[in-house]
Amino acid sequence: MPVTTGRKSFGSDNHAGAHPEVIRAITDANAGDSVPYGDDEWTRRATAELTAAFRGREALFVFNGTAANVLGISLLLRPHEAVICAESSHLNVDECGATERVLGSKLLTVPTPDGKLTPELVASRLPGRCDVHRVQPRVVQIAQVTELGTCYSLEELNELGEFCRTEGLYLYVDGARLANAAAYLGCDLADLAAAADVLSFGGTKNGALAAEAVIVMRRELAGSGPFYRKQQMQLGSKMRFMAAQFAALMEDKLWLRGAQHANAMAARLAAGLAGVPDVTIRYPVQSNAVFAALNPPRIAALQREWTFYTWSESEHVVRWMTAFDTTEADVDSFVEAIRGIRAS
Amino acid sequence: MPVTTGRKSFGSDNHAGAHPEVIRAITDANAGDSVPYGDDEWTRRATAELTAAFRGREALFVFNGTAANVLGISLLLRPHEAVICAESSHLNVDECGATERVLGSKLLTVPTPDGKLTPELVASRLPGRCDVHRVQPRVVQIAQVTELGTCYSLEELNELGEFCRTEGLYLYVDGARLANAAAYLGCDLADLAAAADVLSFGGTKNGALAAEAVIVMRRELAGSGPFYRKQQMQLGSKMRFMAAQFAALMEDKLWLRGAQHANAMAARLAAGLAGVPDVTIRYPVQSNAVFAALNPPRIAALQREWTFYTWSESEHVVRWMTAFDTTEADVDSFVEAIRGIRAS
Amino acid sequence: MPVTTGRKSFGSDNHAGAHPEVIRAITDANAGDSVPYGDDEWTRRATAELTAAFRGREALFVFNGTAANVLGISLLLRPHEAVICAESSHLNVDECGATERVLGSKLLTVPTPDGKLTPELVASRLPGRCDVHRVQPRVVQIAQVTELGTCYSLEELNELGEFCRTEGLYLYVDGARLANAAAYLGCDLADLAAAADVLSFGGTKNGALAAEAVIVMRRELAGSGPFYRKQQMQLGSKMRFMAAQFAALMEDKLWLRGAQHANAMAARLAAGLAGVPDVTIRYPVQSNAVFAALNPPRIAALQREWTFYTWSESEHVVRWMTAFDTTEADVDSFVEAIRGIRAS
Amino acid sequence: MPVTTGRKSFGSDNHAGAHPEVIRAITDANAGDSVPYGDDEWTRRATAELTAAFRGREALFVFNGTAANVLGISLLLRPHEAVICAESSHLNVDECGATERVLGSKLLTVPTPDGKLTPELVASRLPGRCDVHRVQPRVVQIAQVTELGTCYSLEELNELGEFCRTEGLYLYVDGARLANAAAYLGCDLADLAAAADVLSFGGTKNGALAAEAVIVMRRELAGSGPFYRKQQMQLGSKMRFMAAQFAALMEDKLWLRGAQHANAMAARLAAGLAGVPDVTIRYPVQSNAVFAALNPPRIAALQREWTFYTWSESEHVVRWMTAFDTTEADVDSFVEAIRGIRAS
Repeated sequence: MPVTTGRKSFGSDNHAGAHPEVIRAITDANAGDSVPYGDDEWTRRATAELTAAFRGREALFVFNGTAANVLGISLLLRPHEAVICAESSHLNVDECGATERVLGSKLLTVPTPDGKLTPELVASRLPGRCDVHRVQPRVVQIAQVTELGTCYSLEELNELGEFCRTEGLYLYVDGARLANAAAYLGCDLADLAAAADVLSFGGTKNGALAAEAVIVMRRELAGSGPFYRKQQMQLGSKMRFMAAQFAALMEDKLWLRGAQHANAMAARLAAGLAGVPDVTIRYPVQSNAVFAALNPPRIAALQREWTFYTWSESEHVVRWMTAFDTTEADVDSFVEAIRGIRAS
Repeated sequence: MPVTTGRKSFGSDNHAGAHPEVIRAITDANAGDSVPYGDDEWTRRATAELTAAFRGREALFVFNGTAANVLGISLLLRPHEAVICAESSHLNVDECGATERVLGSKLLTVPTPDGKLTPELVASRLPGRCDVHRVQPRVVQIAQVTELGTCYSLEELNELGEFCRTEGLYLYVDGARLANAAAYLGCDLADLAAAADVLSFGGTKNGALAAEAVIVMRRELAGSGPFYRKQQMQLGSKMRFMAAQFAALMEDKLWLRGAQHANAMAARLAAGLAGVPDVTIRYPVQSNAVFAALNPPRIAALQREWTFYTWSESEHVVRWMTAFDTTEADVDSFVEAIRGIRAS
Repeated sequence: MPVTTGRKSFGSDNHAGAHPEVIRAITDANAGDSVPYGDDEWTRRATAELTAAFRGREALFVFNGTAANVLGISLLLRPHEAVICAESSHLNVDECGATERVLGSKLLTVPTPDGKLTPELVASRLPGRCDVHRVQPRVVQIAQVTELGTCYSLEELNELGEFCRTEGLYLYVDGARLANAAAYLGCDLADLAAAADVLSFGGTKNGALAAEAVIVMRRELAGSGPFYRKQQMQLGSKMRFMAAQFAALMEDKLWLRGAQHANAMAARLAAGLAGVPDVTIRYPVQSNAVFAALNPPRIAALQREWTFYTWSESEHVVRWMTAFDTTEADVDSFVEAIRGIRAS
Repeated sequence: MPVTTGRKSFGSDNHAGAHPEVIRAITDANAGDSVPYGDDEWTRRATAELTAAFRGREALFVFNGTAANVLGISLLLRPHEAVICAESSHLNVDECGATERVLGSKLLTVPTPDGKLTPELVASRLPGRCDVHRVQPRVVQIAQVTELGTCYSLEELNELGEFCRTEGLYLYVDGARLANAAAYLGCDLADLAAAADVLSFGGTKNGALAAEAVIVMRRELAGSGPFYRKQQMQLGSKMRFMAAQFAALMEDKLWLRGAQHANAMAARLAAGLAGVPDVTIRYPVQSNAVFAALNPPRIAALQREWTFYTWSESEHVVRWMTAFDTTEADVDSFVEAIRGIRAS
């Protein structure tokens, strides 16, 4: 599927390129020699900025989101312990079984109406603790933003965190789109991290080339991280270039500005479709994604000109995503196209 | 260990930054939207160039050298099968047990005088085939260039390949510095690949930011590759930026020019030390590395001003590496320093 | 939970001891020396009997049911491939994540009304084939008898097998209670195996001490089996004693006589409860298990005198199991107790 | 290789059958119903006897020696940690890579003259601690008796234990033939365990059918054991029959009497060969094994009538093992045969 020439893709935020500031930071970091594997000034500075912003203990750069999830979870599990997660989670559906393969750990999945776990849903997977025939639930994994574009409120996060602490569980947050959640909730990164033990902070979907950070919130969990990262094949030798990407994102909160803009474009898209017959917004629009149901011929007609994915064939649901570089004009043209195809 | 200001590092070829052409290619690839995960023009073109150059069947980009080795080997092994490799190999020593952890596979190590396997050395690990208590040797892993800076001649490679075919073994080549071998031997990449079933082709140590390629030489081995890469957390979403790095390296054989230069600088360094008393070159200089034995106070004095690693504390051996951007002046100053410290 | 003195346990068929014939066979096999690891006459004979009875290619003894499932499935999967199974399956619920840990493989679970998979249920997990982000379904795992005591008819088995062949899937059958299925269906072991690629045949729940067999139905799958068994820690050195257990079970079809009897005792129990108010049989009684719903105080009162498990606390469902050595008098006393407690 | 009729096998102690007392204990345990999975009186009693004899914290039964090693080591390792062991160890050579496969852990092997590790040999594998590219040594694994039939003295054991504590390492002892070591050293099981963190205690080679025990010496290591055992497919449902085997071995120290006898028979064999030209005893005879070098035609001639293994083809070394049921007459006939074949 090539992106239609001359038209902005609404396929995913990773269809976008890199933010020019990210490219500039990489270019700037390309200045002479540097010791590799993270023992350099760029990495030290970017790491310090991240740990400060999250009020965390350690930040570890990795190459992609699957690796961030696997590394983050690996800090929290012993061999007989398992992860409770939403059935629809990226971890369960879209990582080709990396958690099972690399960690040998089982996922205990829970169906959810909107991609979000609640204490009640988590509790439904807790029976069997202390039974030697059962894996022992130890990590609750959530995504903020979820795969369905929804956000946990700070109250929901804290309630879940409290529940985990009471039950002796860890909370891991897949933050591939954490920036969009912060933008939607109007809160700090530290607010989003307060309930978590480990979380990821995505760079790639928000303007980086290929960089994610794993943020470790508790000192006693941080020690093994560098070893696990190496073993999990995520230690970059020229790490200054990964650090530079995050340095650019942290500079004047570029991460936030990009996410705010992307969210605003999704809201504009949703607003533009209000009242259009036979286009039903499927989940609350709380980030940079709009899920909508519309009839299949209309989907097909639109996809001849515009780039986006069908999320559920059986329910005729499509996903439209915006990015840091989606313009108002892009959205308006797309809205017009959707409306126009309806008319025909 | 910071790199001493104003002095070229002789610590490793990954102390160097990226080649300006690589940065330019990344910048050029940052043009609008593109479908992710490799289904784009940049990836298609770079992949085609690599498979043509190697006369291979498939090229898969990954983020670092450990990942290239693990992915490459994973295409060749069943669970009860094992890898024969040199005791001194990067695979065995410097990858934090990634092969054992991610693949669950055992390494059968062989001591070698110069980092190179021979049919005889491989044969020493073959007894026990068909014995159900033993892992079954299946892959012979070599590095070209080896960890000790030495190269296999084409005759040696072909002899090893022939031996492997006769014995029902696969040959995997860790080519993190394959470019330096091609430069030293004056041969094509296809010549280096002819005996191999799978090999890696390093970009990072030769001017890329973070990109390696796994080259699959046999069609029947290629099918699982994309799945294994994803599962092993090496599928980049904005893959055009990985492809762009290799596109730059392939352009007018930048990979070869960089490696030829690096090799020439190592040769110049070795030549400059000829006749210097108490500095003994340890292995044949056949790439961009010079291993030398010298006395510990002299090592210590040099390391106060220059950046390089001690390879063996017990044998007083150091490793000096050159890169695509090491200059003749860098080498000459370093030679002078080594000679000077001797004089004092 | 000790078994109440003087009262037959209805807790599980593994509460029973070993069949006296099994003990006798072990005693008989204890005659002088023998080569270990299965290269002995006892193993050869028992293996031959099993492969003949199943019309299979290979039979491998292992120590328990979890090991049989893991070994059987390991013969069928590559690293990126997954197992479709019932959510309620022993494999998913009661093996402490052994498949994920030892094989690194993901289970794709399906909710079922009665523990049984159908082509339609399997088909619900097939979308995503060829998508590199998804594990690729490869094995359909069923249990015959299921965890809920139900049996697949031969028609259902063959339909499922046909579906698997059409879809390029393998069929693995967990036969921990295969004997009970054969007894219920009145068919041969070969009939039960006809649709399967690999299956297990349980000894332990049917009178053995600790022995299960993995039956491999296709020659091309058999070669790795002995190596995988050893690696999976299931190769017994004094294997004649495992073989002797199966030899006893195969002698005059002791396995069938024991299963027929156990099934008859479950049927007698179910029949004895017909018409008892407030005791609802939950699933069709098709083996040696009776699941029944009754009110919690009654459950509690019964459990003070009799040994059995509550299957679902929330639904007040208990499981009563019979064994090869349950007597008619045991059943009648238990029926009387159930009726009596109702009366009080 | 069948065992020659009418002649005692000197192939291995697992060529012997089970001790009649073991069979009797199994028969006695076959008395009515019992709760499974170790929650029974037989298991409680046997476990209590073992923990008392070792002054340990927990005893876990498993089915074979490979499983005992894997379970024992799994209690001691995190993912990036490794095992230092002798190159000749059963763990490294004869377990088909189970440690790498099931635990994902690397073995750091050390060549040894006699199968025994020393603090110096262990220290040779310690460089690289804290280096993120290297696996981190954490467990020192020794076998008592070693694969070469030699024993560590109590002084050697304690010295090694002391070294491990100083270096932050755990000590694991593979005790498949621990009974023979106790018999040779004239010490208690607790003496052998004093320096260890976890060890195994073999039953199978000393008269059991199929039972080994993993002894955990420190309380904080014991908690995960039952879960790991289940996940590693070693939890027997009718565990009373495993416990009964150890109950028989512990009764009046049957384990010691059997081992003393086997050792005495090996000593008699070695003594009987003293002065026989061209038969060279290879290692000190400190258990129930005699390794000897003799010329190949003589080996071939002997193997036509007697059962034993060639240990090293290249060095013409054979291994002769005795068992609890080897008689003086067996040894004397064998000695005569060896002498006779020399004469011819």
